[in-house]
Amino acid sequence: MLSASASLLNVKVVILDSGDHAPAKQIVAPTAPHLTHVDGSFADAPKIQELAKKVDVLTMEIEHVNVDTLLQIEKDSSLSKLEIHPSPSTVQVIQDKYRQKEHLSSNKLPVSEFLAVENTEESVKAATEKLGLPLMLKSRTLAYDGRGNYAIREVSQIPDAIAQLGGRPLYAEKWVPFTKEIAVMVVRTTSGEVASYPVVETVHKDNICHLVFAPLRSRDPTLSDRARSVAENAVKTFTGAGVFGVEMFLMDNDQIYINEIAPRPHNSGHYTIEACETSQYENHLRAILSLPLGSTALKVPSTVMLNLIGHSSSMSEIEKTRDVALTIPGTSVHLYGKAECRKGRKMGHITLVAESDTQLRERLRPILLSLPNSTEEEVEKYAALPAVPGSGYSDPNPLVGIIMGSDSDLPVMLAAARILDQFTIPYELTIVSAHRTPDRMIEYAKSAATRGLRVVIAVIGVPVKGSTLDGVDSLHSIVQMPRGIPVATVAINNSTNAGLLAVRILSAGIPRLIGAMEQYMKKQENEVLGKVGTLQEVGWEKYQVKRS
Amino acid sequence: MLSASASLLNVKVVILDSGDHAPAKQIVAPTAPHLTHVDGSFADAPKIQELAKKVDVLTMEIEHVNVDTLLQIEKDSSLSKLEIHPSPSTVQVIQDKYRQKEHLSSNKLPVSEFLAVENTEESVKAATEKLGLPLMLKSRTLAYDGRGNYAIREVSQIPDAIAQLGGRPLYAEKWVPFTKEIAVMVVRTTSGEVASYPVVETVHKDNICHLVFAPLRSRDPTLSDRARSVAENAVKTFTGAGVFGVEMFLMDNDQIYINEIAPRPHNSGHYTIEACETSQYENHLRAILSLPLGSTALKVPSTVMLNLIGHSSSMSEIEKTRDVALTIPGTSVHLYGKAECRKGRKMGHITLVAESDTQLRERLRPILLSLPNSTEEEVEKYAALPAVPGSGYSDPNPLVGIIMGSDSDLPVMLAAARILDQFTIPYELTIVSAHRTPDRMIEYAKSAATRGLRVVIAVIGVPVKGSTLDGVDSLHSIVQMPRGIPVATVAINNSTNAGLLAVRILSAGIPRLIGAMEQYMKKQENEVLGKVGTLQEVGWEKYQVKRS
Repeated sequence: MLSASASLLNVKVVILDSGDHAPAKQIVAPTAPHLTHVDGSFADAPKIQELAKKVDVLTMEIEHVNVDTLLQIEKDSSLSKLEIHPSPSTVQVIQDKYRQKEHLSSNKLPVSEFLAVENTEESVKAATEKLGLPLMLKSRTLAYDGRGNYAIREVSQIPDAIAQLGGRPLYAEKWVPFTKEIAVMVVRTTSGEVASYPVVETVHKDNICHLVFAPLRSRDPTLSDRARSVAENAVKTFTGAGVFGVEMFLMDNDQIYINEIAPRPHNSGHYTIEACETSQYENHLRAILSLPLGSTALKVPSTVMLNLIGHSSSMSEIEKTRDVALTIPGTSVHLYGKAECRKGRKMGHITLVAESDTQLRERLRPILLSLPNSTEEEVEKYAALPAVPGSGYSDPNPLVGIIMGSDSDLPVMLAAARILDQFTIPYELTIVSAHRTPDRMIEYAKSAATRGLRVVIAVIGVPVKGSTLDGVDSLHSIVQMPRGIPVATVAINNSTNAGLLAVRILSAGIPRLIGAMEQYMKKQENEVLGKVGTLQEVGWEKYQVKRS
Repeated sequence: MLSASASLLNVKVVILDSGDHAPAKQIVAPTAPHLTHVDGSFADAPKIQELAKKVDVLTMEIEHVNVDTLLQIEKDSSLSKLEIHPSPSTVQVIQDKYRQKEHLSSNKLPVSEFLAVENTEESVKAATEKLGLPLMLKSRTLAYDGRGNYAIREVSQIPDAIAQLGGRPLYAEKWVPFTKEIAVMVVRTTSGEVASYPVVETVHKDNICHLVFAPLRSRDPTLSDRARSVAENAVKTFTGAGVFGVEMFLMDNDQIYINEIAPRPHNSGHYTIEACETSQYENHLRAILSLPLGSTALKVPSTVMLNLIGHSSSMSEIEKTRDVALTIPGTSVHLYGKAECRKGRKMGHITLVAESDTQLRERLRPILLSLPNSTEEEVEKYAALPAVPGSGYSDPNPLVGIIMGSDSDLPVMLAAARILDQFTIPYELTIVSAHRTPDRMIEYAKSAATRGLRVVIAVIGVPVKGSTLDGVDSLHSIVQMPRGIPVATVAINNSTNAGLLAVRILSAGIPRLIGAMEQYMKKQENEVLGKVGTLQEVGWEKYQVKRS
């Protein structure tokens, strides 16, 4: 994917990877003899040397490279013009997870408690006494996709844990009972400026990244800024340029811990190809080539990325999911051209874009269901069906909130719900009283935008007719909001119009609704024209007025 | 670009083009000996034969191929499993512009008048007598980017026209004084279904496609449907699958003529890569491989494509524009990896996306200005600066319309304009009276959406205080709209709130405005908190109330 971005800028790329037909090599055909690819491993010192001699800027898409060779190359006076991004020292710190944690901790960045341990039962037992159980025992190096991690729940598991992870240096981490995993891609320029992408929710399955949703929805309106700030500050502490994936844990109390940092384009940023103004790959390239950074803004309302993980040595399961994905609007399939499929291997990914979270999850559902190992729980959690229009229950991902000060307003507000049902717009309907539930009111107002609500019927005001004054008191109180606090007021008891206004407001961002509204208006016009005909036919003496 | 789409689906591609490093060959490295590319011209019969033997499906990205060879291959029983898309007969009809026009005309599709002519002065003169002057004399074959066209303005030019176009068969077309050129990409499946992309405006310069804007803005609300329908109907008359670019002329009276059809991915569809749910390239691939078509919907509010045309034999002018483009948010640069730059050669293109036409044109402006041959007229026409906030003039690409029934409402409505100025939202302000200018009112309402307006302050109603009843009459008349016709009413004379409501409505589609509104609210809060402090400090006996 990085090579694809490079080709758009006529930037020549030489690849170091094993085999002549490695995925990246398939999409970069050398145009000159000095640009031929290198056949070898990213751990192979002479091969890295060979690559270094061919290029002006050297970068990597995996942190488990032979960093000693990179450090040597950095000092090699015959290669003094070569730039390496990110810097070898950054890669060195990051590829040892214990040193990475130490680095973050010493820079006052939020990480959970951790301890160095020896490869002995005593040392690990001592760690369980300090950090408690369960305890995460982790390999310091060469760990990814959950490999190199062991969750010790009981002291009796310690020997097994050491045996499974043994041979490599270890450290221990306090158990983090997170509620969600989130991530932020950060891009760092050669001069040390950083820019971050939107916060995403990452969902792992069997320790491998499974789904990535953007933007993150949250009841906490401060979360997005806090997470981006933590991620940006973390990346500022490193040297060298490029994109970094910052994986974080979100706790029940809304606290954030950094889990780990990847010094490269990252799975949690694949969605940026279709969903952001500049992809993580293009921004990585811009950063390492000292070009101006591109915008990290989302260009769609909602997006999700699904990794295509091998289920067996056959591609047939992947092809089944691909075929389903091709039938779904807003879907982009990325297959990586890997020669062989294996269980657990990343064979590709699928990105979906949509006008709303509800549409996104509707689009995701058949794709999730096509996976041989999808569970009902997972499908209901991440791709729940929208609320059935007319069912009387709130949608899990509403765009519109209808709130009433009291349940006595329900008969009036139902008409607004009916309109939203007609336009299949996801909404919620609940009671929020400024007078009787002030805390709930404030929480509702503050979290509305970050939960994904775009219109609140209450900010569209429906005056409800009371027992006296025919509702004129209510009309005047709603319409007469102070300067600076606009409420779009409709006629007394006319919540139909409030619903229609909500649809019109949403159509400012969802062009499809303009057409739907035109059809609705045409239907109204035809109804009146029908009455014109009837009046003429039967005469006004016999005409029966139907109340709508 | 087609090859890039193919690689995402693991579809193997073999390229026929001259040279070993032709652009497409740079991004498709063969992974097996039988997949090596073919070095030759698309006019070279043996080379086409060689390609045909290597592939399951054969397609083309230029219509000037050797179609006789394709027709032979189609009949070759040893290649009976090969599919050719679009069908050779379609290519044959399209590559002869006179036959193409005959085909469209016989299918009752709108084309301007045309005539076959001989390569003689007498024959061309007879055509000028039938079709009038000016007259377009055109080569029937091998014409593109304006090559092979001659505009005869006077009879005395006929000898020169024949000399310049001579040698090739000719035909004559009646002069079409179009107001705009528009285009629609249509994709046709192997079973003959068609789907179309949004209508775009194309701008040509020196007869080469220069700019493509999507979506088309128009005062005529029927134009988009009419143009898509003409384009779809035209493509339905051909056989074979793939995307087709349908170029059309829009006349002063809103009539549409088909100019010509390209049976392949087209310049006017390049914007689809970044701006649509499925690009023209992926849909071409899906069509010719009998896969389900992808969605043709736009996923951004506004987009433009600029062709990067060589100015000389040096890339330096192209590089200058690239460097400017890299500083502009929402920009994607596509360079084609062509080995040599030449005057008039397409070296790449740039696509910009934006939240509004105004933002798009602001982003486009420095890029247009970077071109060595840009004219002031062109920059002002296609990349005009937005109206200066507070200048008192309407923006050329407004998102909000403030309309008043009478100029006497201006003092009240100015406050709404001030708010939109503060949020730098492009708007227009004018007089449209339902009572005194009913035709203008209807035209304004019908064209608002297709002109790009998203909010009309009038549909947000501001009751204006009259000389009697303090405006309560106006409030009641505005709020009391019938069921089905919602008007968002604000307080009497409070057009500040109408402006703020417009900003809130736009924020449903422009997420950046949510943050801007939060800052505005915070400022309001701080003002009140400042007053809390002052009240405490000076005491209420000395406190001076300032009227805002």
